[in-house]
Amino acid sequence: MLLANTNWNYPTAVWFGNGRINELVQACKELGIRNPLFITDEGLVKLDIVEKTLNVLRKEQLSFTVYSDVQGNPTGDNVENGVRHFNENKHDGVIAFGGGSAIDAAKTIAFMSGQSKSLWDFEDVGDNWTHANLAGIAPIIAIPTTAGTGSEVGRASVILDENLHSKKIIFHPKMLPGIVILDPELTIGLPPSITAWTGVDAMVHAIEAYCAPGYHPMAEGIAIEAIRIIAKYLPVAVKDGKNLEARGQMLVAAAMGATAFQKGLGSVHSVAHQLGAIYNKQHGLLNAIILPYALHQNKSAIEERMVYLSTVLGLKDQGTDAVIAYILALRKELAIPHTLKEIGITEDKAAEIGKMAYKDPSTPSNAKTVNARDLEQLFRAAVNGDIKEL
Amino acid sequence: MLLANTNWNYPTAVWFGNGRINELVQACKELGIRNPLFITDEGLVKLDIVEKTLNVLRKEQLSFTVYSDVQGNPTGDNVENGVRHFNENKHDGVIAFGGGSAIDAAKTIAFMSGQSKSLWDFEDVGDNWTHANLAGIAPIIAIPTTAGTGSEVGRASVILDENLHSKKIIFHPKMLPGIVILDPELTIGLPPSITAWTGVDAMVHAIEAYCAPGYHPMAEGIAIEAIRIIAKYLPVAVKDGKNLEARGQMLVAAAMGATAFQKGLGSVHSVAHQLGAIYNKQHGLLNAIILPYALHQNKSAIEERMVYLSTVLGLKDQGTDAVIAYILALRKELAIPHTLKEIGITEDKAAEIGKMAYKDPSTPSNAKTVNARDLEQLFRAAVNGDIKEL
Ligand SMILES: [Fe+2]
Ligand SMILES: [Fe+2]
Repeated sequence: MLLANTNWNYPTAVWFGNGRINELVQACKELGIRNPLFITDEGLVKLDIVEKTLNVLRKEQLSFTVYSDVQGNPTGDNVENGVRHFNENKHDGVIAFGGGSAIDAAKTIAFMSGQSKSLWDFEDVGDNWTHANLAGIAPIIAIPTTAGTGSEVGRASVILDENLHSKKIIFHPKMLPGIVILDPELTIGLPPSITAWTGVDAMVHAIEAYCAPGYHPMAEGIAIEAIRIIAKYLPVAVKDGKNLEARGQMLVAAAMGATAFQKGLGSVHSVAHQLGAIYNKQHGLLNAIILPYALHQNKSAIEERMVYLSTVLGLKDQGTDAVIAYILALRKELAIPHTLKEIGITEDKAAEIGKMAYKDPSTPSNAKTVNARDLEQLFRAAVNGDIKEL
Repeated sequence: MLLANTNWNYPTAVWFGNGRINELVQACKELGIRNPLFITDEGLVKLDIVEKTLNVLRKEQLSFTVYSDVQGNPTGDNVENGVRHFNENKHDGVIAFGGGSAIDAAKTIAFMSGQSKSLWDFEDVGDNWTHANLAGIAPIIAIPTTAGTGSEVGRASVILDENLHSKKIIFHPKMLPGIVILDPELTIGLPPSITAWTGVDAMVHAIEAYCAPGYHPMAEGIAIEAIRIIAKYLPVAVKDGKNLEARGQMLVAAAMGATAFQKGLGSVHSVAHQLGAIYNKQHGLLNAIILPYALHQNKSAIEERMVYLSTVLGLKDQGTDAVIAYILALRKELAIPHTLKEIGITEDKAAEIGKMAYKDPSTPSNAKTVNARDLEQLFRAAVNGDIKEL
């Protein structure tokens, strides 16, 4: 089935559909942007989809420049240089184009473009965000080229503080892009492995958000539907990358996963964040490996929800064990390894990883209250492939 | 279970929780309102909950005035007088307090407070809304006291044009309130009948939105979860009006139903809107009576969705017939009549009602394409209680 073009209005204005990238100049007009800074990452800038997108701007003679000095884990320097570039060229808005890294960097550059305080003053702690100069935040159009992080519908970015070797969350409500363009055609070139890893990341967002404590039925409804969509379409998108319906469904489900996780994430992300920093492995791949072990560890807190999820997914059996069995089968189908060992991660730093994971911002919203020792155990189980051990 | 206080950020900022009304001055501060116009309807203004709310403002010495010249179906005059009142008293924001009528009127008064064009120039037709003066729209805080219409999370209002005897939709994205306070304690005084009727209205919003054609998975996820919540908690709220959990769940589900119906409504509303205008019956009651007949008429277009909904609701059987049986049982439990005849509506104007319903803005998004004759038949069936006839 060909999904028709359509526009939505929450959590922000979303323009969905194949070829919607051709409406980019219209999007600039709606946000009052006359001279956008196009921000992408150093890998993506060489690809056809960037050239194709810039041609849309050229065709309508919109002035712009490109900034692509954005690393896989965007750094404070990437942001500061971007802000300088933005101001030197008198830009009045940002086009954020790419995966989570590019979009995170771009949102932060737009936010910082007119602030007098420095970047780390806006770390997501207490009411830091209230000290921002609202007039100094440039409007943002976000265009994801992967279906995973969902940063395009989020109000925060993760930026690496190189001096402290730690990832920080920069938050402001106005970092939410004013318009999001979800164009499935931009994602058909993604290789099967990245499709699978980013897709499972989206699923983990939805599952952890659904299981997080707290009352947020709108987030839960979105999460459950996202899980159902991903279960149905991720295997198709991986096997048949040119299937635009599957690509479209995955783009939307990724945005839904991120919308849902305003409710919170959990221990999968707590541990994966540390492993990403230490071992430089792909975030979605780490999440995909850790997920079933975390479900097992959280079982006593999530059983009722997992019974409902089993029903939604049409599983034969019901409950946490049934969902774990389903996830294990899905991982196999997507050629995702069962253990961290298989991707070269050992138990060496287990105690340290447990302690760091405990401090991760995702930990307090885990379904079950966990301590550093629990997270260390979760990590060890994922290294060794031992679900019974937890 | 006592639902804890919590804040959400989509579709707008929502402050949920018992006693959150006490944070009203804080809400004014966040939106920069120093001198709010408090708008409610002529029935509500005499109730304790209004006095209690005004005392919150008085306690913190916020200046305000009250405007309550709002009828059950708010009129253009109600809006114009409200705008005059707003400007004469130099107000800088609006507190919309009450059911759908008060909130619709208040949103429109806030919107019109600084426009040079006239009200009907902003009827929701074409791109009328783009001609509004953005700076002339006052900020809005919405506080629903019924769990039904969900106008507090909507970007439109229904206003009666007295000269043409027709209801018009006034639309602007900035008519979406900036902060919504959902305080279950404000709804515990609602009598069982109004609780039931407004609650089924919310359910009909969710069902019609879920069944509307078009691709909007986020709306569908929200709609399905809203239906599940209403099925579980509406009977409790009707039987035990002081049950704050049930009241809270219903307030949230009503906001979810309205959020979902950005996707569209259907023939239940198409017909109910006409009957509301002609016979002056309560909107939710009309919807509740018509719903099963409309499901029956739409059966061929909604069967797949009704199978899934049956599963979500935990019904023994699956499909449209199973959902209809469930709705009939729910209506009986809520003491809602089976036919329009029982509330004094006859077939006399059936042809006219079919034609008018066909022109209703809800008709194009009905699950199945219907013409005036179909809607006439739907109406006749609902008068006579004949489901087989359709
Ligand atoms: Fe993630
Ligand atoms: Fe309604």
